[in-house]
Amino acid sequence: MSRVVKLAVIPGDGIGPEVIAEAEKVLDAATAASGVQFAKTRLSLGADRFLATGDVLTDEDLQTIAAQDAILLGAVGGVPNDPRLKNANIERGLLLGLRFALDHCVNLRPSKLFPSVPGPLASPGEVDFVVVREGTEGAYVGNGGVLRPGTPHEIANELSVNTAYGAERVVRYAFDLAQKRRHKLTLVHKTNVLVNAGGLWSRIVGEVAGEYPDVATDYMHIDAAMIHMVDSPSRFDVIVTDNLFGDILTDLAGAITGGIGLAASGNLNPAGEFPSMFEPVHGSAPDIAGRQKADPTAAIGSVALMLDHLGLTAESERVTQAIEADIAERTGAPRTTAEIGTAIASRISA
Amino acid sequence: MSRVVKLAVIPGDGIGPEVIAEAEKVLDAATAASGVQFAKTRLSLGADRFLATGDVLTDEDLQTIAAQDAILLGAVGGVPNDPRLKNANIERGLLLGLRFALDHCVNLRPSKLFPSVPGPLASPGEVDFVVVREGTEGAYVGNGGVLRPGTPHEIANELSVNTAYGAERVVRYAFDLAQKRRHKLTLVHKTNVLVNAGGLWSRIVGEVAGEYPDVATDYMHIDAAMIHMVDSPSRFDVIVTDNLFGDILTDLAGAITGGIGLAASGNLNPAGEFPSMFEPVHGSAPDIAGRQKADPTAAIGSVALMLDHLGLTAESERVTQAIEADIAERTGAPRTTAEIGTAIASRISA
Ligand SMILES: CC(C)[C@H](C(=O)O)[C@@H](O)C(=O)O
Ligand SMILES: CC(C)[C@H](C(=O)O)[C@@H](O)C(=O)O
Repeated sequence: MSRVVKLAVIPGDGIGPEVIAEAEKVLDAATAASGVQFAKTRLSLGADRFLATGDVLTDEDLQTIAAQDAILLGAVGGVPNDPRLKNANIERGLLLGLRFALDHCVNLRPSKLFPSVPGPLASPGEVDFVVVREGTEGAYVGNGGVLRPGTPHEIANELSVNTAYGAERVVRYAFDLAQKRRHKLTLVHKTNVLVNAGGLWSRIVGEVAGEYPDVATDYMHIDAAMIHMVDSPSRFDVIVTDNLFGDILTDLAGAITGGIGLAASGNLNPAGEFPSMFEPVHGSAPDIAGRQKADPTAAIGSVALMLDHLGLTAESERVTQAIEADIAERTGAPRTTAEIGTAIASRISA
Repeated sequence: MSRVVKLAVIPGDGIGPEVIAEAEKVLDAATAASGVQFAKTRLSLGADRFLATGDVLTDEDLQTIAAQDAILLGAVGGVPNDPRLKNANIERGLLLGLRFALDHCVNLRPSKLFPSVPGPLASPGEVDFVVVREGTEGAYVGNGGVLRPGTPHEIANELSVNTAYGAERVVRYAFDLAQKRRHKLTLVHKTNVLVNAGGLWSRIVGEVAGEYPDVATDYMHIDAAMIHMVDSPSRFDVIVTDNLFGDILTDLAGAITGGIGLAASGNLNPAGEFPSMFEPVHGSAPDIAGRQKADPTAAIGSVALMLDHLGLTAESERVTQAIEADIAERTGAPRTTAEIGTAIASRISA
């Protein structure tokens, strides 16, 4: 009896559809012989959908998505400064909407540097770490407000909400991951200023650390982490941090490991109550959309994370190996989005 | 009649006293022939003072400091994890205490890369920008709190408060500065998530921009700024941003321009109601303290910023030129803190 995985596919805007086409190509190749079938439901969400219908994410969309086993998303967001999108905030309504509604508490973002990939650092050393970013709390909760808008007396507040419940599940995930890796966990925060949230995170890491005596923990302020990320990134194994610091840190991590064209991510609901969502870290890049210029590697890497999350470990491993083999042979000669996808897929089928 | 400048000198902890000794050496050299006298009041504040007396910053300290014309500060903060300092939070009580009490709304942090300085980037290009960081608002206001501390139901909140009044004065300062430089201003924020604070900052920049038609403005999300900072830092001229993003961005800026041993800063009260404070961006580095290993260049650069702020433009220029000449001839051969200070001072006296 073959297993059926219900998969929501959300190609999205800009380069989203192009990179997702390649991700699906690789997914097909990796699972062809596995006995696992992917029953796909395609949703057209994003700026184009908003412009056509005025909807960002309806209850019906959400119900459809919540009934799937996993979600593969390309990228969402329209052309910057498009006046018709002024009040839409697609990223917030759709991307954050899904992360919050589906309780994606772990935002998993691995970074690995390959010798063949040109990066901005002169001598980075071996770089291979994972950022475990909290995904449902912090400054992202949308609990802010404005008083006296548009006046010289305007006050704009943003509330960062952090709970023991929310931090602990992410911290546990990070410790488990560190145990499978190089047994090192770094908490990044700003405890000397954000004493309340920082105190909570430090306490939880300290408490959970007691259960993982084989994992060494340390602490770094977010500003110091900036320095170490460019000076000595090989020191990191697993980094655990809050939503906003994680956002900032992972773009830097992507940049130093060859650009966010390679950076994959998983928005995980580890408890399995809702489908997890897999997406490249990059955005919709409308400036290069439709021209086969985007690198689909990040989207394909997200497929590897998805397969792993679904328990299809061998299939995930094959995708990762195919990506790494492809990357290892990159010469800098330009290839189209489809050429890269086909190259990776055919390594798997071969 | 000679002008007297009342100067508070706060050497602080760790390497603070060593770098401040060199900063004073250079200050003396630069102002010897100027007719300006610096009447110094030395305050011993920081971790050592706290351990001796239990005080971080008394009302009397504050009154003494507020009565000066300027403040030169080394670095404060004890040995990390010293249990006796657990609840002291010297950085917050003293550094932030002074920034807030003296209304240091502009935190000015220039970054410039010198060809002779080894940095982490392979091909940075010409890097010369200034971050104008807001210094009295945002997530630094200390308006957070904890509910059910220490329990599995703990909630830790941090409130970021942003006002039109607070943003506008900093934005105006940044535009003025851009006009004296390469006429380019970049707002860095996270408007797609922090819609309230981001909306305020965008509105103020948009409004003030109308008065500076010769300054080109653009906008960058903080995460995207991470990427550009390592990929194409030469694109920046003046960056204006909030307190927390500014903290993060300036450590990265310091790192890519040769390390925070070179990064100077000014905490400015542009209206002149209170003394402005000048300090290296680096911390007290207790691990290398007392061994003449610290680079005093950041502290000396802070003297240059101070002289400029005091209207001693020619003297400031001489310090900057001496620093740049010294840096240009650096070979990587180790020098003591005092040797670097003396070398820079003697270029001025020569
Ligand atoms: C688009 C934006 C809302 C999102 C975030 O801030 O989380 C993105 O930057 C990311 O990192 O996935
Ligand atoms: C020590 C700390 C409170 C301070 C800050 O966060 O502002 C420091 O990092 C800085 O940048 O001056």
